[in-house]
Amino acid sequence: MNQELIINNKHYKKADNLESLNMFKGQLYETIVTTQSNEHVKNAAPIGVICKDSNHVVIHLDNCVHTHLNIMENGELIVNIIKDPLIFTYSTLGELDEEYFGQFNGFPMIKDSLGFFKAHVIKTIDKKRENDYNDGKGNVVTCGVEDIYISENTEIVPLNRAMNAVIESLVYYCRFDHKYKDRQEIIWTHMKELNRVCQKVGNESEKKSMKLILDKLKENHDYLE
Amino acid sequence: MNQELIINNKHYKKADNLESLNMFKGQLYETIVTTQSNEHVKNAAPIGVICKDSNHVVIHLDNCVHTHLNIMENGELIVNIIKDPLIFTYSTLGELDEEYFGQFNGFPMIKDSLGFFKAHVIKTIDKKRENDYNDGKGNVVTCGVEDIYISENTEIVPLNRAMNAVIESLVYYCRFDHKYKDRQEIIWTHMKELNRVCQKVGNESEKKSMKLILDKLKENHDYLE
Repeated sequence: MNQELIINNKHYKKADNLESLNMFKGQLYETIVTTQSNEHVKNAAPIGVICKDSNHVVIHLDNCVHTHLNIMENGELIVNIIKDPLIFTYSTLGELDEEYFGQFNGFPMIKDSLGFFKAHVIKTIDKKRENDYNDGKGNVVTCGVEDIYISENTEIVPLNRAMNAVIESLVYYCRFDHKYKDRQEIIWTHMKELNRVCQKVGNESEKKSMKLILDKLKENHDYLE
Repeated sequence: MNQELIINNKHYKKADNLESLNMFKGQLYETIVTTQSNEHVKNAAPIGVICKDSNHVVIHLDNCVHTHLNIMENGELIVNIIKDPLIFTYSTLGELDEEYFGQFNGFPMIKDSLGFFKAHVIKTIDKKRENDYNDGKGNVVTCGVEDIYISENTEIVPLNRAMNAVIESLVYYCRFDHKYKDRQEIIWTHMKELNRVCQKVGNESEKKSMKLILDKLKENHDYLE
């Protein structure tokens, strides 16, 4: 079996279990999941992935329409470990541009992934969804993990509050009209504070991400200032 | 010059500039700064370090009493890049235990650092402080960076909201009676929400950190529930 992989000049080495990605049982990680329809239309969405054990993950499919449909259609996905705030932002606010995608064995992935794994659905449970898509029907899927790859050039990441601000703001953005419907004023005030922090301590990608998130939310809610 | 360093069985390699630590001009990073008094009493404190250029940082000394005094006394410090939430928590809520300290050329550092650098003060400016220590006098110090070391075993870090929750809660904790004095109820509600997220998605260190922070805040403010 080939233990080395090169995608877009980035070298990856094969790993045996999720612990190699620093993903541990019971914890939930913010990732980008890539899928494709049976017609090979690709999609990327921000998804929280729960590590079930060394080779299984659980995903709640709640409000990612294309990802949900694709996974129900063919049961295949790639989970990408990403640190670029713009990839999280673009894939949350709309569609991720073609330029961000790479391929692994013909399946879409994010070419700047720090690490990724292929997975396939082995169990599906129906659940009530939080929002209005798909007649209020959601799914909890358990997936078996197949191929795990880690970038050979892992870098040190000093702590910076700007990335926190982007991720928390994206969570607020997604839940603004559902879970936080009755608390929009408080949430909006908090998002503006997160933006202030991000503009003060962040890099260009983080600052741009925050601006995109706030602008989009204002565009959809003209009473926000 | 020795380019390799081993501290507590951890191998470090020498680097030439802050960019090697992924610290870039104009950004602020949450670090642990270690210092010692002229009597060699060591101290560790969480400090935001602003990267000024490839070999200079700026630090605002506002409410870390020992760190402030030590730096004013002898102008020496080590900036440690840390990912362990408990190190941030212990050093914010009280004193960091002896077991966490290592040494670099006889100067205290954190032995689990992902990377660190020695620095010395080259310029000091007085500033008005936000709180009551030291008669309201603070300092902004510019430091020259001397020795930069990076761990050779840098690991992939998948995104997880629990570490965000710990860092944001520590910021709230430090400012609770000053900056957030008039907004304690909103901040406390938000901290409880961060705790909920952390207990749901975090690892044992992150969960323990959040519990310590909330318990300590309640201990000092008996009206919080």
